[in-house]
Amino acid sequence: MPTTPAQLEELAAAAAAAAPVWRLSAADRARWLRAVADSLDAHAAELVEIADRETRLGTARLTGEVARTTGQLRLFASVVEEGSYLEITVDDADAAATPPRPELRRLLTGVGPVAVFSASNFPFAFSVAGGDTASALAAGNPVVVKAHSGHPELSRRTAEIAIEALRAAGAPEGSLALIEGREAGNALVRHPVIRAAGFTGSLSGGRALFDLASGRVDPIPFYGELGSVNPVVLTAAAVEARGADLASGLVGSFTLGVGQFCTKPGVVFVPGGTGFEDAVAAAVAPVPGGPLLTDRITGAFPDGIRALLSDPSTEVIAHGAETPEGARPVVLATDAAAVAARPETLLEEVFGPLTLLVRYSDEEELHAALRAVPGSLTATLHAEASDEVGETLDLLQQRAGRVLFAGWPTGVAVTWSQQHGGPWPATTSLHTSVGATAIRRFLRPVAYQDAPQHLLPVPLRDTSLAHTPHRRNGKLVLP
Amino acid sequence: MPTTPAQLEELAAAAAAAAPVWRLSAADRARWLRAVADSLDAHAAELVEIADRETRLGTARLTGEVARTTGQLRLFASVVEEGSYLEITVDDADAAATPPRPELRRLLTGVGPVAVFSASNFPFAFSVAGGDTASALAAGNPVVVKAHSGHPELSRRTAEIAIEALRAAGAPEGSLALIEGREAGNALVRHPVIRAAGFTGSLSGGRALFDLASGRVDPIPFYGELGSVNPVVLTAAAVEARGADLASGLVGSFTLGVGQFCTKPGVVFVPGGTGFEDAVAAAVAPVPGGPLLTDRITGAFPDGIRALLSDPSTEVIAHGAETPEGARPVVLATDAAAVAARPETLLEEVFGPLTLLVRYSDEEELHAALRAVPGSLTATLHAEASDEVGETLDLLQQRAGRVLFAGWPTGVAVTWSQQHGGPWPATTSLHTSVGATAIRRFLRPVAYQDAPQHLLPVPLRDTSLAHTPHRRNGKLVLP
Repeated sequence: MPTTPAQLEELAAAAAAAAPVWRLSAADRARWLRAVADSLDAHAAELVEIADRETRLGTARLTGEVARTTGQLRLFASVVEEGSYLEITVDDADAAATPPRPELRRLLTGVGPVAVFSASNFPFAFSVAGGDTASALAAGNPVVVKAHSGHPELSRRTAEIAIEALRAAGAPEGSLALIEGREAGNALVRHPVIRAAGFTGSLSGGRALFDLASGRVDPIPFYGELGSVNPVVLTAAAVEARGADLASGLVGSFTLGVGQFCTKPGVVFVPGGTGFEDAVAAAVAPVPGGPLLTDRITGAFPDGIRALLSDPSTEVIAHGAETPEGARPVVLATDAAAVAARPETLLEEVFGPLTLLVRYSDEEELHAALRAVPGSLTATLHAEASDEVGETLDLLQQRAGRVLFAGWPTGVAVTWSQQHGGPWPATTSLHTSVGATAIRRFLRPVAYQDAPQHLLPVPLRDTSLAHTPHRRNGKLVLP
Repeated sequence: MPTTPAQLEELAAAAAAAAPVWRLSAADRARWLRAVADSLDAHAAELVEIADRETRLGTARLTGEVARTTGQLRLFASVVEEGSYLEITVDDADAAATPPRPELRRLLTGVGPVAVFSASNFPFAFSVAGGDTASALAAGNPVVVKAHSGHPELSRRTAEIAIEALRAAGAPEGSLALIEGREAGNALVRHPVIRAAGFTGSLSGGRALFDLASGRVDPIPFYGELGSVNPVVLTAAAVEARGADLASGLVGSFTLGVGQFCTKPGVVFVPGGTGFEDAVAAAVAPVPGGPLLTDRITGAFPDGIRALLSDPSTEVIAHGAETPEGARPVVLATDAAAVAARPETLLEEVFGPLTLLVRYSDEEELHAALRAVPGSLTATLHAEASDEVGETLDLLQQRAGRVLFAGWPTGVAVTWSQQHGGPWPATTSLHTSVGATAIRRFLRPVAYQDAPQHLLPVPLRDTSLAHTPHRRNGKLVLP
């Protein structure tokens, strides 16, 4: 049922009322995040059953995704307890400076209620209680989630469980809310109460919401993850040394989750004449596809293949196993000169089990094509120690948020060091949406000048500094 | 002379070519920043002479501003040497994790060429070689500055000196460039090479550029500082204890620099019936004004007074000394109920030596008016220890990036802990434009997965980690 304007007003007002309470105590926030994680774990079997019915992603994958999601909530609980995210900075007064300096104490604090738009392809980890929600709550902000139409029942049940867990743990009413319907989502991102938005989805949908967020009388930051072709470069030496392994690794990665990961390797630069295409054909032949997430995605997959094949340079070179229902894996090939000339046709992201091999004959051709590759979440380089890769690497790191030198880009560890983001259109921002620093998106700095101790936020008081990493007069101090 | 499209193309191409060199070495960047600072200091007398002729700000103030500007360049040199700004984070591989974790090493790196729009009111500190330029260069990015039309000759001479200093110190061609003219500025923020923009100026001018930056095919972050009324709240107890001091402090702050600071206290909430208005009238009476920065600002000042007086609640309560040339200080008064009812009229920023006293009779009236105050760079609370200020303080800190408990908001120390930014329309972003962390605006994260040591950026190699603050497996490590 689409959320009505009156319902949205009520939810927004409740979120606004909850915001000062969420900003107050890191210990409470950590407890509340863990309460949500524990309750989702306790209801995992029920949730996975609903999710599998709605998304057809399979119980093994979905069970793993629940664990990833609750692990994420617990990571952010530990991030707020650790305290570095506050970026506490103290400069003592200096009467001898010209002009004399007052005392300044600075920290980051919650920006206010956050809108989260959930994704179709991660019904748990990038949905109602996913990474955007976890990081926004951890930062001290109530969250209003727009449910994805691909898994409405799961969204409602997840929200019920999370809201009940928050209530039982003592969090204020209005801490988390769910809305449904495109119109309600548009109204949400324009609502005066909302101070930032997180989004994972398509370039067209994300761009429309970004424009609404930027077009407000008071623009708000919009953190969107919008699409990525995730280039891979193989050197001739790497193919010679381990071509069969690379072929089976590539096939495993681009068919994982029926090719519906944002980090799927979508375009692979391969040296011509090395036999790598045959190795890929052999590796993909026995691999079946499967049903895609939604009817829209199911319909878009053959359209995407047709669009690539509309270029005269492109051909199908291999298929996966016959797939009775859904999308069958497919490998296409083109050449580097065509990619450099027509990137808007050949480097369009196609959601589903498809990858495009791009043959290159020398470095010059490779680099010209790489210059046409748009911003991506990841870039992968498979080379040997003997390869000279300086310029190739520089082109790749200019275009991606994560650069891999082994393995494949699917699989995004939730850690302190993770970076899931990249130049446009990969994301709209200079931040990550996965990993500990995702919290920075939903914080703003405030400095206190010459404040009496009892009027400072608790983390800035002398009694708290001893327990929290901070910088004092330019020097880092550990607890 | 307005920059032509062909000239802009040439400058942008040079900036793009210089970008990889700027990203390479923090030690080089620190050296280059100090070379610019030294050369500006060596030319200070010449520059101040030009600046005084163009801005009429006076040689004392302008000489101080040169020192502030070169101090800023040197602060950023020390920030890049210290290394925390890289936010280096390493997670070692963990084969025992489910799924097994690769090694990840993350750092922040320069985003690419940056556009800087200079301000009229700080011809050095927020202009060609000002804070935006210093922080963008420190982050590892070439800069193209749009000169302010209020001080064209100074802009050209400053750019010449800075560019020559960079060249002599070995920085690549294209490191810094100057453009002139509104059309060229608009083209700059839309130019494909430009990856971020910094701006200090008016709400209307900033909004227009923000819309251009956000409307690009590939939107870029726009860091604008657009306007601020800088609310001040005085409690009855504070006025009783030190009313005369508060009055003279306020007058000193709102007339400083002829009222042309972005942190000028523009609206002051005063308890009714305390005699504070008489104290302000006495304090302002002998204070002259002076010439304003530009003809546009000179013309807008009386318009701003008229607009405030168009509200039936508003009256002039005091003037400064007769001022033969330029703007004479003026104090207006209204009441809190009027402000709460008509904030769009009464809380419009007026550039120049004007402040608006807002009489309140009780806390309820005060809080209703504070809820109507837009986002500001600063908020100031003068209270006594006996005052209960919880809710007042909460309303102020929701609206400002810096909260003061003593002194006045003009005067922004350039330190690690400074925060110069606030909710819209104070700024467009969750970052500061003054102080060490201003560098974060021009950096983006990149993570390296399973990289061989020799292919990692130098700061991420094992040999560098020993010298740089970083986080390893979740724990902060100091050198």
